[in-house]
Amino acid sequence: MQRKISEAVSVYNQRKEEYYKDLEDFLRIQTISSDSHYRDEIWKGADWIVKQLKSIGASETKILETQKHPVVYGKIPSLKEGALTILVYGHYDVQPPDPVDLWKSKPFSPEIRDGSIYARGASDMKGQLMVTLNAIKAIMEIGDLPVNFKFLVEGEEEIGSPSIESFLEENKALFQSDFVLNLDAGMISKNKPTIVYGLRGLAYFEITVHGPKQDLHSGLFGGVVYNPIHALCKLIAGMKDEEGVIQLPGYYDDVRPITKEDKQALGKLGMDKSFYKSQTGVDQLFGEKGFTPVECVGGRPTLDVNGIYGGYTGEGPKTVIPATATAKISMRLVPDQTPENVRIQLERYFEKNAPEHVSWEIKMLSSDSAFITDPDFYAVGCFAQSIQAVWDVEPVYQRGGGSIPIVSYMKNILGLESVLSGFSLPEDNIHSPNEKLDLEVFHKGVETIIHFVFNVSENCVKK
Amino acid sequence: MQRKISEAVSVYNQRKEEYYKDLEDFLRIQTISSDSHYRDEIWKGADWIVKQLKSIGASETKILETQKHPVVYGKIPSLKEGALTILVYGHYDVQPPDPVDLWKSKPFSPEIRDGSIYARGASDMKGQLMVTLNAIKAIMEIGDLPVNFKFLVEGEEEIGSPSIESFLEENKALFQSDFVLNLDAGMISKNKPTIVYGLRGLAYFEITVHGPKQDLHSGLFGGVVYNPIHALCKLIAGMKDEEGVIQLPGYYDDVRPITKEDKQALGKLGMDKSFYKSQTGVDQLFGEKGFTPVECVGGRPTLDVNGIYGGYTGEGPKTVIPATATAKISMRLVPDQTPENVRIQLERYFEKNAPEHVSWEIKMLSSDSAFITDPDFYAVGCFAQSIQAVWDVEPVYQRGGGSIPIVSYMKNILGLESVLSGFSLPEDNIHSPNEKLDLEVFHKGVETIIHFVFNVSENCVKK
Repeated sequence: MQRKISEAVSVYNQRKEEYYKDLEDFLRIQTISSDSHYRDEIWKGADWIVKQLKSIGASETKILETQKHPVVYGKIPSLKEGALTILVYGHYDVQPPDPVDLWKSKPFSPEIRDGSIYARGASDMKGQLMVTLNAIKAIMEIGDLPVNFKFLVEGEEEIGSPSIESFLEENKALFQSDFVLNLDAGMISKNKPTIVYGLRGLAYFEITVHGPKQDLHSGLFGGVVYNPIHALCKLIAGMKDEEGVIQLPGYYDDVRPITKEDKQALGKLGMDKSFYKSQTGVDQLFGEKGFTPVECVGGRPTLDVNGIYGGYTGEGPKTVIPATATAKISMRLVPDQTPENVRIQLERYFEKNAPEHVSWEIKMLSSDSAFITDPDFYAVGCFAQSIQAVWDVEPVYQRGGGSIPIVSYMKNILGLESVLSGFSLPEDNIHSPNEKLDLEVFHKGVETIIHFVFNVSENCVKK
Repeated sequence: MQRKISEAVSVYNQRKEEYYKDLEDFLRIQTISSDSHYRDEIWKGADWIVKQLKSIGASETKILETQKHPVVYGKIPSLKEGALTILVYGHYDVQPPDPVDLWKSKPFSPEIRDGSIYARGASDMKGQLMVTLNAIKAIMEIGDLPVNFKFLVEGEEEIGSPSIESFLEENKALFQSDFVLNLDAGMISKNKPTIVYGLRGLAYFEITVHGPKQDLHSGLFGGVVYNPIHALCKLIAGMKDEEGVIQLPGYYDDVRPITKEDKQALGKLGMDKSFYKSQTGVDQLFGEKGFTPVECVGGRPTLDVNGIYGGYTGEGPKTVIPATATAKISMRLVPDQTPENVRIQLERYFEKNAPEHVSWEIKMLSSDSAFITDPDFYAVGCFAQSIQAVWDVEPVYQRGGGSIPIVSYMKNILGLESVLSGFSLPEDNIHSPNEKLDLEVFHKGVETIIHFVFNVSENCVKK
């Protein structure tokens, strides 16, 4: 096995300049998913992936239409009996390049400068998809694949993947695999290859409090009605105590405690108080008592008001008592909380605490389960070994504070765990002008995947 | 005296159809103060008043320019030695007529239907100004005026009178008088002639709470920073207790208690719980414990959030922790509170209660003192007698919840008390389509002022 790895790595290193051409081709396609003017480019992007998959040995490819942008399916089979099947998740769509005049080179004309390739999508995530495709290509040049690959490459990630949940429900059989390889998460820094083993979920609500039947003159009626903004503020104020503890009834009942291993992993990320202070610009952090900042972000649930509005919000004074007040409130969830239970807790809190002078309604706008990989999941261990072999350091294990819905869809709909990692850097300017991909990191990424493919097929035991 | 009153009333009643013509002329001028396209009409309105004042005997008139729209000054002298001088306040500007297509007759083409004259400004307040001018005209037809009249007729009332405070400061001498007659307040209902003897003041603030240096991703940073919306909500929540008592330190120290006489007067207004419920559309009123609704509105100070905004206020979800949150908060004040003291109380409240994790700033956007007439003020007593004589009922005495800044300017700048009344009805559609003036009420208004002129000059004792 070690010989095959060396051969494949060596082929890759000899021919990587040639491999660039593919990435550059891919980066020239303006696959902007948010703007319907780019519909043709979106289809061009999907077609390009099909062509690329075929050129490296795919036995099956399909472009599957959704309500919005198509999903590319592909399969590259192994000849080995009983080989594992890895489902590669990716997206070919990109963010709009605006503001275009801040780019040093044109966003869809890739240019190599100072060891990086500059283009929209270079890092997020056309380059990340090419990491896997290049690894497979190199392996296939020296022989056969030891694992089967399936691909699911969507075109809607940058607009929130509106079609993907129902798409997966309808295509469960097609994507049956052993686990998912998702390189859409990045590294903490250039020398810290990262495995994300947990993400928080989300429950996002819009809450409206109703008071008088219409806006009232605060002179003629000030003093006789309950102001709905005041009611909403009282309710929001009571949702957290002075120590940052959330007061919804039963909110912590389903919260899986942070383990000793979690604490160790989170402690190694180097995200200390001064990191969070410099990132947020606050003089004093504020988190749940008894937890470090990185534990609060990675392993504890939150409640935040994301927006609030009511009454007069224009310039100057207007003396009105408003008819309604609205807040957008969301909770970041950890295992084993569920958005549905949190909705019930929120409703109970309102039933108990809302003044009887007002009425209220709660709408759930968005939800996503939390994700945490089983610490003993074999593919993660294998991925860590592959990182160690190439980078000569252990990976850091991150529990991230955000949500990546596809990870929970893979788990909840297809029953698949994800290996969540990636080779993008915080300084890659994803979603900003001058997006780039560090080529040294990219090459090490390809080598890592070559190692991983062999490691996972031979060394790691599927439980 | 009684003979002169009868003669003047009789002259008016014989010639009132002819007097209409003047009001109709006045109503044809499109004196819309909020729209600069009507600047010529504004000047036409000012000129018209000058002409009218001259035609009924003014010895002096001036059009005085301000930063925006001109003020008309006029003087009609009495030949009687030591006669009182009454300063008539009025405004010749009107609200825009929009939406014009809801008017049954054209807004600037006055039309008499069912005993009312329909036109923009008929009730608010060209008609009210004509009440006094007609009364003077009728008196002058039978002899001399027993009192001097001065006039201050502005063109900016409907846009908040931005020039009037500095204008009065600069023209104190010109308007020296004994008291002000201001008919810009209305009647509670057709059979309840009303004297407003108190109004609340106003202190209006814009408060901004600052948290992180920029909007943050609620996934990456949720759990480590104090959300400024949450901080603002906590602060707002704490400003009032469960019984509606305002918690700013020292807020009630300067509040003049409601007297037995106040309670009696307010009780006679007929504004009971069911009135306030039907006006506001709430199932349950909420006011300061220990006071009736009409006492809360007329005689107690309030604190209301007039507007709030922060974070994401568009459609759908966006997971942001905002950098700032802003509220517009105003207090309706009663004697002897001052806006400046309330500002200090608000700042003290913030100093004591704001979480140390955020910073904040407070701007005062608007302020106005409360007004209450001395219950023994002779001109008010005289006005009440005149009402009794014409309407055959006692007037109701109202302490209003709103603010009319000109009343406190007259007091604070010129040192003048105001007799605040008027002959408009709640159903006159002021500020709405189909504004009208009830002609029966209008005629009784003219008679009331004829009585008042003689009463105040002979029967009432200036203290």
